[in-house]
Amino acid sequence: MRKFGVIGVGHVGVTVAYTLVTKGIADELVLIDKDQKRAVAEQLDLQDAQARLDTTTNVKIQDYAELKDADVVFITAGRIKAISESKTGSRWAEFEYTRKIVKDIAPQLKDSGFHGVVIVTMNPCDAITQYLQQETGFDFNKVIATGTFLDTTRMQRVVAEKFGVNSKNVEGYVMGEHGGSQFVAWSTVRVNGRPIQELAELNHLELDYDDLEEQARRGGWYIHQGKGYTSFCIATCAVKLGQAVISDAQLACPVSMLNDKYQTYVGQPAVIGAQGVTATIDPKLTDEEETKLAHSAETIKEKFITM
Amino acid sequence: MRKFGVIGVGHVGVTVAYTLVTKGIADELVLIDKDQKRAVAEQLDLQDAQARLDTTTNVKIQDYAELKDADVVFITAGRIKAISESKTGSRWAEFEYTRKIVKDIAPQLKDSGFHGVVIVTMNPCDAITQYLQQETGFDFNKVIATGTFLDTTRMQRVVAEKFGVNSKNVEGYVMGEHGGSQFVAWSTVRVNGRPIQELAELNHLELDYDDLEEQARRGGWYIHQGKGYTSFCIATCAVKLGQAVISDAQLACPVSMLNDKYQTYVGQPAVIGAQGVTATIDPKLTDEEETKLAHSAETIKEKFITM
Amino acid sequence: MRKFGVIGVGHVGVTVAYTLVTKGIADELVLIDKDQKRAVAEQLDLQDAQARLDTTTNVKIQDYAELKDADVVFITAGRIKAISESKTGSRWAEFEYTRKIVKDIAPQLKDSGFHGVVIVTMNPCDAITQYLQQETGFDFNKVIATGTFLDTTRMQRVVAEKFGVNSKNVEGYVMGEHGGSQFVAWSTVRVNGRPIQELAELNHLELDYDDLEEQARRGGWYIHQGKGYTSFCIATCAVKLGQAVISDAQLACPVSMLNDKYQTYVGQPAVIGAQGVTATIDPKLTDEEETKLAHSAETIKEKFITM
Amino acid sequence: MRKFGVIGVGHVGVTVAYTLVTKGIADELVLIDKDQKRAVAEQLDLQDAQARLDTTTNVKIQDYAELKDADVVFITAGRIKAISESKTGSRWAEFEYTRKIVKDIAPQLKDSGFHGVVIVTMNPCDAITQYLQQETGFDFNKVIATGTFLDTTRMQRVVAEKFGVNSKNVEGYVMGEHGGSQFVAWSTVRVNGRPIQELAELNHLELDYDDLEEQARRGGWYIHQGKGYTSFCIATCAVKLGQAVISDAQLACPVSMLNDKYQTYVGQPAVIGAQGVTATIDPKLTDEEETKLAHSAETIKEKFITM
Repeated sequence: MRKFGVIGVGHVGVTVAYTLVTKGIADELVLIDKDQKRAVAEQLDLQDAQARLDTTTNVKIQDYAELKDADVVFITAGRIKAISESKTGSRWAEFEYTRKIVKDIAPQLKDSGFHGVVIVTMNPCDAITQYLQQETGFDFNKVIATGTFLDTTRMQRVVAEKFGVNSKNVEGYVMGEHGGSQFVAWSTVRVNGRPIQELAELNHLELDYDDLEEQARRGGWYIHQGKGYTSFCIATCAVKLGQAVISDAQLACPVSMLNDKYQTYVGQPAVIGAQGVTATIDPKLTDEEETKLAHSAETIKEKFITM
Repeated sequence: MRKFGVIGVGHVGVTVAYTLVTKGIADELVLIDKDQKRAVAEQLDLQDAQARLDTTTNVKIQDYAELKDADVVFITAGRIKAISESKTGSRWAEFEYTRKIVKDIAPQLKDSGFHGVVIVTMNPCDAITQYLQQETGFDFNKVIATGTFLDTTRMQRVVAEKFGVNSKNVEGYVMGEHGGSQFVAWSTVRVNGRPIQELAELNHLELDYDDLEEQARRGGWYIHQGKGYTSFCIATCAVKLGQAVISDAQLACPVSMLNDKYQTYVGQPAVIGAQGVTATIDPKLTDEEETKLAHSAETIKEKFITM
Repeated sequence: MRKFGVIGVGHVGVTVAYTLVTKGIADELVLIDKDQKRAVAEQLDLQDAQARLDTTTNVKIQDYAELKDADVVFITAGRIKAISESKTGSRWAEFEYTRKIVKDIAPQLKDSGFHGVVIVTMNPCDAITQYLQQETGFDFNKVIATGTFLDTTRMQRVVAEKFGVNSKNVEGYVMGEHGGSQFVAWSTVRVNGRPIQELAELNHLELDYDDLEEQARRGGWYIHQGKGYTSFCIATCAVKLGQAVISDAQLACPVSMLNDKYQTYVGQPAVIGAQGVTATIDPKLTDEEETKLAHSAETIKEKFITM
Repeated sequence: MRKFGVIGVGHVGVTVAYTLVTKGIADELVLIDKDQKRAVAEQLDLQDAQARLDTTTNVKIQDYAELKDADVVFITAGRIKAISESKTGSRWAEFEYTRKIVKDIAPQLKDSGFHGVVIVTMNPCDAITQYLQQETGFDFNKVIATGTFLDTTRMQRVVAEKFGVNSKNVEGYVMGEHGGSQFVAWSTVRVNGRPIQELAELNHLELDYDDLEEQARRGGWYIHQGKGYTSFCIATCAVKLGQAVISDAQLACPVSMLNDKYQTYVGQPAVIGAQGVTATIDPKLTDEEETKLAHSAETIKEKFITM
């Protein structure tokens, strides 16, 4: 029996919950939110839907004790402040707010006896996940975040459009902070199985990498501007990580995790299975990319400490 | 190739869109909204998600001409005014607002050359759907609304909880207005294949039908109170109707459709296939239920005319 | 994590396995067969497929110890002897053969520490399932068979075709033996929510119930004639029961289970959840139907004892 | 509405059909086989299953005229002769047999007015697909075969096991004949985003490429030995191609298609969309690999001509 928890039923949390229910992925689902009325509302809306679905998910709410035997808990709390974000272009403004949330959640999650994998979508993604690991004391490998798994989809989309292919045909990684200092590791990017530069030359396409990167990096911003938050892709990424855990898939994905060298959480590819991160993947970066990764890691660390 | 349109990308519309994409139901999807930025945002969020999904949906926006060869168009426009709704307990407050929307949408939809089935989730559901049929001149059978298909799920949930069974095991219909004058046709309700009253007696369960009905009728209200709108179940119902159309399933579902006897749109069971309503189902109602249906139909007609 | 076992990888067993893998239902799957080469072949074929699927299922073989923590084990062993079946029209010819299989399987399954739910598709379905319960000593509620869940689909199809509706709109039960003495409990059959007779009269349809029943009862025979075995519907039924168990769905389905009154396994509706049968459903049968059920139960008992 | 045809309902054909039905991919499905009884049997088995599925597929049989508006037709005819295959290790023994089938099928398919994409799984895969293109006169891009898309899964599985990762993390191509002269283009193979050799060195793994290739090349043979045919992975590959067509996915996959340089059908990567092959992908091969491709192409051509 597959059991999932979702802490924080805002836009991302409920989209994760809905996906787990509508695709028949979850057998049991526990929703927890500070707003009791909202938790009840989401439970009812999901329970109503069951009469029209082929599968059944038992939806429970507001009970940390139920997380004891959950396989995966998604932590999606944190209200996006679209206005402040658009002004500063930074997710750090949320840190003060989300740290309080984690301070509240962490001991309850720990005390529940939960021993599965935590998947975080909160912001600032890398720092708050590190903070959550600290506060819970859970094994590092079992506390991960979507990080640049989301940003990578945006790079894939932008590159796919440029070459007129499916974004599934674009590989490679956005790495670093899920925020301003992230970067596309272009040396890892391949289209239809070939290095992007090689294929561009073959197709006589001139690529402005800075422009592509800017599109990738700012992708979420456009969505925020239009709808005030992002939900569908981030939830899809989170669920995909959850499925990798539940089926012990050993699936390679960029996630935010502890980087041994830089001693901070940062977005980088890893292998995901039942124990969370089961292996790290060290892509062969150029010196310039390595410098960017170091810089991004430092950015996260510095802000983490000074906040 | 399956092609769907969604006009109005509010909470219901985007949940319909997300469901069509994440479950791989749609090959092409056209989103249309008065808010250009929002349409762009939802398109981007859904496009980003494709890199993590097994299926591919081509998501287009803001082009009525694209609906020409769509199989199904969902009309989900209309911003729920949670506050006014909670005060009046009525969806009629929305009519003035949604009529303007339909006035704007209908000619564009007609001119697009669209000749598929329209599935409406707007409110007040029955009246606005009738108005849409009038304004487009589309065949009655091809213009339907979710109507009491949604309310029926709530009755199913409430009854299922009472008997400790899966809501899929509860049959029967909520009929009439998707609004205050709706009623549970208890004579049609069966649990585990037996009439509800018979099973209640067998199980020495005393049922307060008025209370159960109140729970069913007010179900959506509780959700509105908690989250400001309903989305998951209504989208699930709408998509289920859309799937019945696309696969010409001849599936029996309560929908809002033209009732020949009362000459108004009202919630009642019908058979749904590629042509929309392909047959009506006349459940054998008690005299009291027939009276309630007549009353509900009159309520819709009267308000429709006087608005 | 969802874990399933399949003992016997013939046509039904592998279709169950393929369904669990291709629909992403199983996280772990254990295949066991007397034919080592075949087990290896099916494992490889399913493992090869994973590179093209969105989900991951860990497929193991030939290890009873792996069933210790399985949620559901399907027992699908038994080679259909199409020729003998077509001659005698009876599944009893298989009993001698399948009893030997159960004699071999039961102690190994018991010793594995397995404590989930057993779902049997072997023939003669009712008797062999009872025999398996005896040999394992597992709780009665945890040893069930597809029984007339399969035959009921055939009745649903035949009736649906007669009325031009979707077979999902046809309710009711085929009951008794999954074999010659089974019968359609016509008093339970409803089409589009109305009793079949009532709807037939409304539609001026004359129904030859004996002919419809013959079609339903012989449905499998036609398939056997054409392909030598049946696989798709029986596997679909088995998987549906497995899903009801895994999500503790409390779903009403006809299954073969111990009938308290007749003290034999026989096909009748029940509620299925994590513990297997969690409640029996006693449909209100006519006297004639009750007599048929008694007769069918006696047929099973008698043959069970004399074999 | 998605419409598919399957010509030849042997093991592969029915698994394709079952997949399209059980996953709700097809709205309409047309099965055609020389054995009328078998076609009826498969139709019935799939129709019976619908009562237990959430989706509906209209299954028709034996009518070429129904293919007129089909989007995709799978041609899966041809009875595997397991014994002869195991003796000769070659699929060419089937050519004489399958040519007769194509001779029979091609004019009927052409006359039906079908103008979608043909996906072939027959053997010898490359030659028979070329023959089918000749006989139908359909555009080259619209006549493709699974070719080394299947063999590639086997390479992915073998490499994944060696590195302890998910086969989805292994990229690269098996190219050439779907038969003895195929080869793994090792220079295209990547594990977790890194060239296989690089990762092997990092992990201090010694790789015997010839042995891995032998395992990949002979993968199907082991399955044939155990079950007499292969079905699950080949059907999964065929359906994946069909889905790429139906959603115009522009998905990169190795398929058997006309190679311009060698003027023969041969397995190589291409981009698949609504028009079948919409672009070729020329992986950067080593000289040795290029020689192997030339050799494999010559092998196909030579046998094609001399048969």
